[in-house]
Amino acid sequence: MAGYSTEKDQLLRRLRRVEGQIRGLQRMVDTDTYCIDTLTQVSAATKALQSVALNLLDAHLTHCVHDAIAGGGAEADAKVAEASQAIARLMRA
Amino acid sequence: MAGYSTEKDQLLRRLRRVEGQIRGLQRMVDTDTYCIDTLTQVSAATKALQSVALNLLDAHLTHCVHDAIAGGGAEADAKVAEASQAIARLMRA
Amino acid sequence: MAGYSTEKDQLLRRLRRVEGQIRGLQRMVDTDTYCIDTLTQVSAATKALQSVALNLLDAHLTHCVHDAIAGGGAEADAKVAEASQAIARLMRA
Amino acid sequence: MAGYSTEKDQLLRRLRRVEGQIRGLQRMVDTDTYCIDTLTQVSAATKALQSVALNLLDAHLTHCVHDAIAGGGAEADAKVAEASQAIARLMRA
Repeated sequence: MAGYSTEKDQLLRRLRRVEGQIRGLQRMVDTDTYCIDTLTQVSAATKALQSVALNLLDAHLTHCVHDAIAGGGAEADAKVAEASQAIARLMRA
Repeated sequence: MAGYSTEKDQLLRRLRRVEGQIRGLQRMVDTDTYCIDTLTQVSAATKALQSVALNLLDAHLTHCVHDAIAGGGAEADAKVAEASQAIARLMRA
Repeated sequence: MAGYSTEKDQLLRRLRRVEGQIRGLQRMVDTDTYCIDTLTQVSAATKALQSVALNLLDAHLTHCVHDAIAGGGAEADAKVAEASQAIARLMRA
Repeated sequence: MAGYSTEKDQLLRRLRRVEGQIRGLQRMVDTDTYCIDTLTQVSAATKALQSVALNLLDAHLTHCVHDAIAGGGAEADAKVAEASQAIARLMRA
């Protein structure tokens, strides 16, 4: 079980929508759509992906990090450090 | 013709790779892959999309904005303003 | 006590360095420094600020969120939700 | 003369406001202000800095890049490449 397991359907729907946006981008490029309109679609797809990231992160904190801390022990610190590193990667993406 | 027309094949290849990353993400979510590993893949896909954005923007400046300015007239200012707005959207994505 | 209290000196040093970068930017603008060089300094100051943000966030998860969860009760969920919202604000900054 | 010379006063005012935000952050850290409130102020300062960046970039495209292209010759391509690199640095900041 992953932290996001109860929200799997919603996450998959969002990811399929992002996939649709990326395929839409391929059609736009293939038909020489004006650069700025293509860029607007890239911004929309990026925003949708970041929204998926925030969902995953929230589920991770709510479940995995929560359970590690509630369970006590050394694993809690490792989980928090790992989450911080993931946040750093997202902010620098 | 769009500003990126001479780089269409390369852009399409990159976008197909991003599509593959998004489908990979769907498989990861579907098989309950650990949140942090899923997030790492989201960061990679976001980075790939932003790299496509930078390519499109560079092509737009090199061709569309360049030609509007070289052609003179009022269109040049409009093109620059439009490019600035697209950059703002990308930075806030 | 805030979550970052044991790292206060380091945070204050980093923030004073960012302040120096912002004052440096004022001098650059005041002396008509070339736009691109000024922009490079803006990027550096932004990166330094985001690094402060990651520090604060890590301290918050390590101390405040950790203690709320370890203490049990309803406060834990509120703390995680609040942290997720702060991360969302940082990613959209 | 830099591309932003006609907007110098406005840019300096914005940068002095960012400096005030950074000094405000130092006071917040110094008085152990709650992490999340401190992070909200970091987000605000980052947003203000990115807004300065977008101003500088727009001025650069409107004046420096414009004039290089209108003047013709090899310098135009170099200016566009340099602007693209600055945009890439800002997006990765």
